[in-house]
Amino acid sequence: MNNVKHSPPSAHATRNRRKSGKKVLRSRHKSIGQPPGSLIHIGEQKVEKTEITLFGYDEMQAVTISVSNPAECAALKEKFKVLWIDVAGLHETGVIEQFGALFGIDPLTLEDILHTGQRPKVEDFERYLFLSLQMLEFNRETGEISQEQLSVVLGSGWIITFQEKPGDMFDPVRHRIDSAGSKIRKHDADFLAYTLVDSVVDHYFSILEEIENRIDILDADLVATFSQESFNALNALKRELIMFRKAVWPLREIIGSVARDDFAVVGDLVEHYFRDVYDHVILVIDTVEVFREIVTSMHETWLAGVNNRMNEIMKFLTMIATIFMPLSFIAGVYGMNFKYMPELNLWWGYYAVLGLMAVIVLGFLKYYRSRRWY
Amino acid sequence: MNNVKHSPPSAHATRNRRKSGKKVLRSRHKSIGQPPGSLIHIGEQKVEKTEITLFGYDEMQAVTISVSNPAECAALKEKFKVLWIDVAGLHETGVIEQFGALFGIDPLTLEDILHTGQRPKVEDFERYLFLSLQMLEFNRETGEISQEQLSVVLGSGWIITFQEKPGDMFDPVRHRIDSAGSKIRKHDADFLAYTLVDSVVDHYFSILEEIENRIDILDADLVATFSQESFNALNALKRELIMFRKAVWPLREIIGSVARDDFAVVGDLVEHYFRDVYDHVILVIDTVEVFREIVTSMHETWLAGVNNRMNEIMKFLTMIATIFMPLSFIAGVYGMNFKYMPELNLWWGYYAVLGLMAVIVLGFLKYYRSRRWY
Amino acid sequence: MNNVKHSPPSAHATRNRRKSGKKVLRSRHKSIGQPPGSLIHIGEQKVEKTEITLFGYDEMQAVTISVSNPAECAALKEKFKVLWIDVAGLHETGVIEQFGALFGIDPLTLEDILHTGQRPKVEDFERYLFLSLQMLEFNRETGEISQEQLSVVLGSGWIITFQEKPGDMFDPVRHRIDSAGSKIRKHDADFLAYTLVDSVVDHYFSILEEIENRIDILDADLVATFSQESFNALNALKRELIMFRKAVWPLREIIGSVARDDFAVVGDLVEHYFRDVYDHVILVIDTVEVFREIVTSMHETWLAGVNNRMNEIMKFLTMIATIFMPLSFIAGVYGMNFKYMPELNLWWGYYAVLGLMAVIVLGFLKYYRSRRWY
Amino acid sequence: MNNVKHSPPSAHATRNRRKSGKKVLRSRHKSIGQPPGSLIHIGEQKVEKTEITLFGYDEMQAVTISVSNPAECAALKEKFKVLWIDVAGLHETGVIEQFGALFGIDPLTLEDILHTGQRPKVEDFERYLFLSLQMLEFNRETGEISQEQLSVVLGSGWIITFQEKPGDMFDPVRHRIDSAGSKIRKHDADFLAYTLVDSVVDHYFSILEEIENRIDILDADLVATFSQESFNALNALKRELIMFRKAVWPLREIIGSVARDDFAVVGDLVEHYFRDVYDHVILVIDTVEVFREIVTSMHETWLAGVNNRMNEIMKFLTMIATIFMPLSFIAGVYGMNFKYMPELNLWWGYYAVLGLMAVIVLGFLKYYRSRRWY
Amino acid sequence: MNNVKHSPPSAHATRNRRKSGKKVLRSRHKSIGQPPGSLIHIGEQKVEKTEITLFGYDEMQAVTISVSNPAECAALKEKFKVLWIDVAGLHETGVIEQFGALFGIDPLTLEDILHTGQRPKVEDFERYLFLSLQMLEFNRETGEISQEQLSVVLGSGWIITFQEKPGDMFDPVRHRIDSAGSKIRKHDADFLAYTLVDSVVDHYFSILEEIENRIDILDADLVATFSQESFNALNALKRELIMFRKAVWPLREIIGSVARDDFAVVGDLVEHYFRDVYDHVILVIDTVEVFREIVTSMHETWLAGVNNRMNEIMKFLTMIATIFMPLSFIAGVYGMNFKYMPELNLWWGYYAVLGLMAVIVLGFLKYYRSRRWY
Repeated sequence: MNNVKHSPPSAHATRNRRKSGKKVLRSRHKSIGQPPGSLIHIGEQKVEKTEITLFGYDEMQAVTISVSNPAECAALKEKFKVLWIDVAGLHETGVIEQFGALFGIDPLTLEDILHTGQRPKVEDFERYLFLSLQMLEFNRETGEISQEQLSVVLGSGWIITFQEKPGDMFDPVRHRIDSAGSKIRKHDADFLAYTLVDSVVDHYFSILEEIENRIDILDADLVATFSQESFNALNALKRELIMFRKAVWPLREIIGSVARDDFAVVGDLVEHYFRDVYDHVILVIDTVEVFREIVTSMHETWLAGVNNRMNEIMKFLTMIATIFMPLSFIAGVYGMNFKYMPELNLWWGYYAVLGLMAVIVLGFLKYYRSRRWY
Repeated sequence: MNNVKHSPPSAHATRNRRKSGKKVLRSRHKSIGQPPGSLIHIGEQKVEKTEITLFGYDEMQAVTISVSNPAECAALKEKFKVLWIDVAGLHETGVIEQFGALFGIDPLTLEDILHTGQRPKVEDFERYLFLSLQMLEFNRETGEISQEQLSVVLGSGWIITFQEKPGDMFDPVRHRIDSAGSKIRKHDADFLAYTLVDSVVDHYFSILEEIENRIDILDADLVATFSQESFNALNALKRELIMFRKAVWPLREIIGSVARDDFAVVGDLVEHYFRDVYDHVILVIDTVEVFREIVTSMHETWLAGVNNRMNEIMKFLTMIATIFMPLSFIAGVYGMNFKYMPELNLWWGYYAVLGLMAVIVLGFLKYYRSRRWY
Repeated sequence: MNNVKHSPPSAHATRNRRKSGKKVLRSRHKSIGQPPGSLIHIGEQKVEKTEITLFGYDEMQAVTISVSNPAECAALKEKFKVLWIDVAGLHETGVIEQFGALFGIDPLTLEDILHTGQRPKVEDFERYLFLSLQMLEFNRETGEISQEQLSVVLGSGWIITFQEKPGDMFDPVRHRIDSAGSKIRKHDADFLAYTLVDSVVDHYFSILEEIENRIDILDADLVATFSQESFNALNALKRELIMFRKAVWPLREIIGSVARDDFAVVGDLVEHYFRDVYDHVILVIDTVEVFREIVTSMHETWLAGVNNRMNEIMKFLTMIATIFMPLSFIAGVYGMNFKYMPELNLWWGYYAVLGLMAVIVLGFLKYYRSRRWY
Repeated sequence: MNNVKHSPPSAHATRNRRKSGKKVLRSRHKSIGQPPGSLIHIGEQKVEKTEITLFGYDEMQAVTISVSNPAECAALKEKFKVLWIDVAGLHETGVIEQFGALFGIDPLTLEDILHTGQRPKVEDFERYLFLSLQMLEFNRETGEISQEQLSVVLGSGWIITFQEKPGDMFDPVRHRIDSAGSKIRKHDADFLAYTLVDSVVDHYFSILEEIENRIDILDADLVATFSQESFNALNALKRELIMFRKAVWPLREIIGSVARDDFAVVGDLVEHYFRDVYDHVILVIDTVEVFREIVTSMHETWLAGVNNRMNEIMKFLTMIATIFMPLSFIAGVYGMNFKYMPELNLWWGYYAVLGLMAVIVLGFLKYYRSRRWY
Repeated sequence: MNNVKHSPPSAHATRNRRKSGKKVLRSRHKSIGQPPGSLIHIGEQKVEKTEITLFGYDEMQAVTISVSNPAECAALKEKFKVLWIDVAGLHETGVIEQFGALFGIDPLTLEDILHTGQRPKVEDFERYLFLSLQMLEFNRETGEISQEQLSVVLGSGWIITFQEKPGDMFDPVRHRIDSAGSKIRKHDADFLAYTLVDSVVDHYFSILEEIENRIDILDADLVATFSQESFNALNALKRELIMFRKAVWPLREIIGSVARDDFAVVGDLVEHYFRDVYDHVILVIDTVEVFREIVTSMHETWLAGVNNRMNEIMKFLTMIATIFMPLSFIAGVYGMNFKYMPELNLWWGYYAVLGLMAVIVLGFLKYYRSRRWY
């Protein structure tokens, strides 16, 4: 934003938009024409090096290990009741492939993990359940919502999560794993999966709150100014809601399926908890729809205000113009240079004309008052 | 934002809106990252102290007891055919937890009770049925509709209702419980649940009547003024309807489920009564939709009126301007100071010019009349 | 409409609307908080006294008796193959209650009969079938569509209809009952029910024809004037269609259910006839939707016309103003009183200026012609 | 309405519309209150006399006979493998009734045949299958689409078609029946039914092509003129599409049912062919929807163009007015008659003022150029 | 584009549109009235001569043969595990017919192959599966999306594809067939079918990326200019999206059916792969919908900008006009020629008037500043 001078603001904004990975679509050029299951990363590289963190716990103990090689994980697989491997960074496809081999993950699942910008989905492979979600994050500085894909592979006793970059959304979960006696320590891997999905969905609420704040501010702004700027802000908001909806809408079906269908790796109790997440998802979707309707009504308010202001401007112009045009005309008449204009020689002529003008002004004013123009 | 004096009224309105808990979303900051079943109250604290009132009745007797401690209720559980515990105020989570323990209510249900601003829902736990609704109240002073969550836990022989603050919506029900021989006294707890839900739904009708009154008043107003104020009032109405719909829409499914499905704690007869409530819910929803369409058509009327008024203004300006511009021009011509302008010396020159002007005026008037401009 | 002077027309219209019972909702104040099955009449009292008319017939005979007391009907119940009791007026709830007792009608059905403004419904009580419809009537004088609730209780061998006021919609049916050898005389009560419902649905067509006439007239009007009045008429039409749709839409489901489901009191043959009514209902609904689309496109025409007319006005103003402003300016220049203005002393100066002005006028006219402004 | 001279063109158009049977609804006055199965013709009488043409064929032979009396047909019923009776003209209800008696057609089917303007439908009577469609015809002279009801009664070995007037849509079918060895000659009556329905649906495509041509022409027109005329043409197109959709939409369900369900008189092979027709129907419906969207976007283009043109007009007016108003003011100042105005006596005063004026003009022009107004 | 001079650009564009086969509908005149299964090519002839290329491969070998006669293919049918015949060009119906005879393809399938512009479909003939898709290609020069029909006939061990003209979309597939050890060589014909369909769907993504680029460019453009040109570009984009959606929407159902239903010629593994394609199709459809919403919001931005600019213009005009009209009037008053006007003789009169004028100007400026007009 430092060298704005030579480019119109909008062009600049567009360039920013391109840079910041806000595109609706991720470029797929690399993958077109490739055989299925070719492990190619679609999306932006958001991190220098893939970070692998391993959490192993049961009711007695909990360890956190930073791992540099997938192979190290395999050894720990049987040592804990629950093993959570958190992988951040997707550009090193070799790493992903190794996990695939170690945990018996289908090539198509690996493809889904690497192709970010996917539609959220759930897929049952009997040995494991694959879940892919969009994590949304509100950037307080730019005021934009950024999107990151979370892939969850849930086996029995183990769970692997793939993110595009390390994040702090799961910090509370990590904290709960560390605290002895917490509920999470008593349950199985499916409960951890539930906790992670619940965190993602809960985060949607905090973004919705941000959006509501922006709606409130814009609401005040709109009515005060009716400027193009406030309209553009409204429009930006509208687009954020379109993107939000795209990310959240499929969850209705997906979380509903987890809560309803009998997946091998999800126990009855956790299914019950997923029903709770399902209710939250529905509430999120309902709220997004309400916001969309509110934004639409704000749009209409803006238009109505602009229309009304136009009316005010034209009324004012019309009042001034209609009053002064006849007056100027009268002045013009007595400014004519005809030899024979008897009025000009009357000593009270000037005053009579001034009086006539005053009458005209009063007449117009009265007329406009009667029409409530002022 | 600290000196109200210099801020436009709309900013003020927004601040009010924030204060009055009219937000679409309740802040969830407290609950994010918490384990499921953590009993945290989401929503505004609307009452100083939790009030617990206990109604016990059977065909012979009916008592009303104000209770300060949940434990007192347990003792009375077996003494009456129907025990209704009405809890007003949700911020003391300990009280809610105690009820949960005493009556065997699932932690997830308790969470749903405490998290206000929920989507209405019904959930069957075999031992009890959990129903959550939004009670709507029209505030005659501010003209706003406020929303309060009602949670109903219906067991066999007992019923617990949780409200955010004490209210008078159920006064007629209480009155009927007190009157010996009333229908309510003869039936079981499920009938009481029906009566309560029916009261909530009946109340929607009175709010719809208020809304219809406001529509009627606005309707007259709109056409008379086409002011920005009436547009804003229209818009406020629109938003009330959006909120109303959000609160009522899910009831279609929920009450339908109670009326249709075989829940253990709801008898056949009461199911039959719930079908009646279901019909009312559908009527409420239909009416909301009709109101929305009417408000939309009022919006269009407003816009059309503003457009039309603009036309009137421009016509008037055009008439005045097009008449006086040629006249002023003619006056200007004979105001020129050329030495040699033969007309100026004719004794009838002045009168001829005045005559010409009159002809021009009449010509224009005739033209405008032919186009029906006045 | 005789003392319009002191009130703006719209306020007046609204008052009328209130009076004429055109409200979307009927006031329910009386019934709120009442126990279910309380027999309270919701709606306007449209008739002085309840009129009860009894038609009894079989293939051989047909009698019409005006009855003052429900008890009289009971005696006749077994004497004819078909007994039709037509009750007009609902405010005397005692009468309705008596019928309920005599014919074993459920209290909830009685409530539905008394609460006018209901959504159309069908309900099977095995012993009888309950049908509730909205009869629509076009008032040729006010041009408004009024709505009246018709409740049909069909038992085996008897049928009771409840209307808000006596009407002539069923006169042709009565006539057919009176004519010996008519089809209706040969069939059972279910056939009579079919005939009545068919009459109501057929009547919708005549109202749709009225609406189409108004659309045709408005269509011509709109294009000719683009006045606010024609817009308001269009809007009124739109609202009539909204109300119409609300009354007719549920019939799709209801008549479909009668035609499809196996109700005890409806024979196979009559089910077949109801399928015919069902087709008519679908045609009515389709036509309403087409009318709504046409009205929307008329709305757009109106707006386009207003916009276009604005364009014409502005073009005209611009043409006049842009021609005369430069001319007046030139006249003004040579009206200046500078001592040294050489042109003023030339004998051909005046004519040169007039010529220059003519050139300017022609230039502008040519320019406007090239842009097709006139 | 008798002196066309003084009425605006639109009123004329409306009158035309009324005459040409373009009404959405056919008047039903005659049938209201009639018993079901009363054979009354609803619709316009489009032909002087009912024409009955009989086609009988099998693989060996094919005859075409013009028949004046339904009874003649009965005799031929057993003589050919396939008997096709084509009835054109519906006002002689007696003829229709005779066919009903001869071929055992249900009175309700006869009613459906006579009541034109029906929604397309299919009904299975086991002995025969009843199909009703809307044939659409593009009138090249008036540019309007006219609608005609085709009823097909398909028995085993015979088929009767009822049209409102004789038409040439089926000429290719007749030709194929006449040519020995054609596919149609080898198959049964159900194949003929398929061929007829296929012709009707194929004809929809030719109308869609006409509509696309009109869209193309209008598209060029719109952008060139933005006149009210082109808007009205656009609107007429929109209405044609509304009517088209109404006629075609139900076919999705109807043809789908013929292709899917097991009707006694339709063989498996022909069912297969009907699946093909079904695909065509879906393509027609999709295309209508695409056209509707295109027309909507043209509508928006028109509005945008009018708005833009308004902008141009106002820019031009503003440029002229803002330049000449200050100039005229300056000229006015030096036209004042004050005794003491020193500038007037300077010999270079006049030139200085002219110079100042030129500077003002150049300043404004530069300003407008910087805002890209010209 | 070389002789633009004498035609308005839009008319020209339309003509182009006609030429370039961008019509929504392909002309069907040739086929109307023809018996079903008549092999007539509907659509444009896009290639001089039909090109037939044959690919035969199994894990060991792969051959590519250019064939001039369908009969040559039959001989090779049994020699390879997989035989892929790629036919480009549809106007030589004889060739298509020969294939039909050789491979036992149903006449209705052949008709579907020849009638281009079909709705995408899947049809199971047990012996083979018929799939028809629309391939979309972005023309970088004209910026238009062209559409081509791809028909796939998949038998067991063989596959025939029919295209309208030879294309390079399948080059990567051909390349993979040629490389020994590639996945495609190990699998059966159904896998090849999957690969081809996947290529078509992947190509949709590259077109969506192009569209997103155009949206980005237009977005910057719109805000900068608000010109009619940018509106027209927006509109063109909208229409491309309408066409895109029409081509892609049916795939949801079709690919879903292939992935779900048990077709004889599609193995379980490939069904699994088709589920992957299904996810892509859903993502394409979702993205198209998001783009449509974005384009709609851009449209609104454009309108808002035009409205706003109008406001700016009118404000400017009003400011200039309201300031100079009173000033000119005052100058006019003192330009009157009355004999007796005392002010004219005061030595400070001129300066007083100039001062008064300055006061008026400052007053107006202050007023406009207070209303934030500048």
